[in-house]
Amino acid sequence: MSDVFASLVATLDAAWICLEEAVDDPGSPARTPTLATVGRNGAPEARKVVLRATDRVDAMLTVHTDLRSAKASELVAEPRATLLFWDHTRALQIRVRAVAEVRSGADASKDWAALPPKARENYGVAPRPGHEINHADDYALQPEPKNFAVLDFRMDEIETLHLGERHRRARFLRHDGFTGLWLAP
Amino acid sequence: MSDVFASLVATLDAAWICLEEAVDDPGSPARTPTLATVGRNGAPEARKVVLRATDRVDAMLTVHTDLRSAKASELVAEPRATLLFWDHTRALQIRVRAVAEVRSGADASKDWAALPPKARENYGVAPRPGHEINHADDYALQPEPKNFAVLDFRMDEIETLHLGERHRRARFLRHDGFTGLWLAP
Repeated sequence: MSDVFASLVATLDAAWICLEEAVDDPGSPARTPTLATVGRNGAPEARKVVLRATDRVDAMLTVHTDLRSAKASELVAEPRATLLFWDHTRALQIRVRAVAEVRSGADASKDWAALPPKARENYGVAPRPGHEINHADDYALQPEPKNFAVLDFRMDEIETLHLGERHRRARFLRHDGFTGLWLAP
Repeated sequence: MSDVFASLVATLDAAWICLEEAVDDPGSPARTPTLATVGRNGAPEARKVVLRATDRVDAMLTVHTDLRSAKASELVAEPRATLLFWDHTRALQIRVRAVAEVRSGADASKDWAALPPKARENYGVAPRPGHEINHADDYALQPEPKNFAVLDFRMDEIETLHLGERHRRARFLRHDGFTGLWLAP
C-alpha cells in the first residue's frame, strides 16, 4: 500500500475526500466536526456541528445553526474559528482555521427552502437555545425561517495529522495556494 | 427504560460514568475529547487530546502534552479552556468549561515515572511539535522528561446535551455544587 501521508499532494487530497464524503454520509466521522470559537467573555467555546457542504474550488465549508445560538453571536463578534475533524477510520485529524460569515434572512432563504421539514425543526426552539427553563421539556419546536442561519467558513489553513507508524503533520495555507509544508508532529 | 436524561442528578451521573469509563477503555469515544483554547493571536484553536485521569470529588480532568506544544503555551497565557466530549453510543455531548494548570519538571515527575516507555515517546519529538521540517519524516523521537507536561483542568461548568426523541440540555456549575439547571436545547 502506498504511503499517502508521505506526500503533500496526496495528504491534501485525502483530507478533501474525507470532508466531501462526510456531507453525503450520515455515518461518516467527519460529518460532525467540533466548532471552536471565542466566547463573548474571551474564553474558548466548542460544540459539535454538522457539516452541510464543502467547496474545494473556493476552499469553503458550510454549517447551519440557529441565529439566536451563542455560536452565531460569537462568530459575528469574532469571525475567526477552528473546525476540528477526526476520522478514526483514516487515523486522520484535520484542523481547519477559518473565518466565518453568518448569513440569515433573505441571504439564507435559498438554503432554508432546500431544507427537509424535519431539519427545519432545529431552527425553531422556543425559548431560544441556551435559555434557562424550569423543566427538561419546557420548550417547543416552531420552525421559523428567521431563526435559521448559514455559517460559511473561508478556510485559511488546513492542518493535517496522520497517526501511523510514523506520525505525519502538514499545513496547507490559502495564501500560497495550499501548496503545503511539513511540521514535526 | 427509564429516561435518565429527564433527571438532573441522573444526567450528571451519566456524564461522569462516561468520563470515568473513558480513562480505562481505549475504545471509548470519550477518551479523545477536543481541547479548545485561545491561540496566541486571539483566534480559537482546537485539537484532539487523550483523557488520562478523572477526579469527580474535586471535579478535575487530566491530560498530558508536550511542554513545547502550542496548547501548553496557550494555556499558560490564557488558562480558560473547553473540553468537548461526544459519546455517540449515548448520543451525549459533554462540554466542560475549565481552567487549566500546566505542570512540568519536578511537579510532573511522579506522572512521568508512571508512564509506560512507549508513551514517553510522545514527549520527545525533535524538533519541537509544530516546527517546520523539510520532509515528512525529518524528526526523531527522544523521550525527554523535561518536555513532559500535565494539564490539570478544574471543571467550572459541565454542560450536557442529549440527543433523543426530545433533546435535553443541562448545565452544572461548580459554584453551586453542580446542582444543575435545564436549558432549552
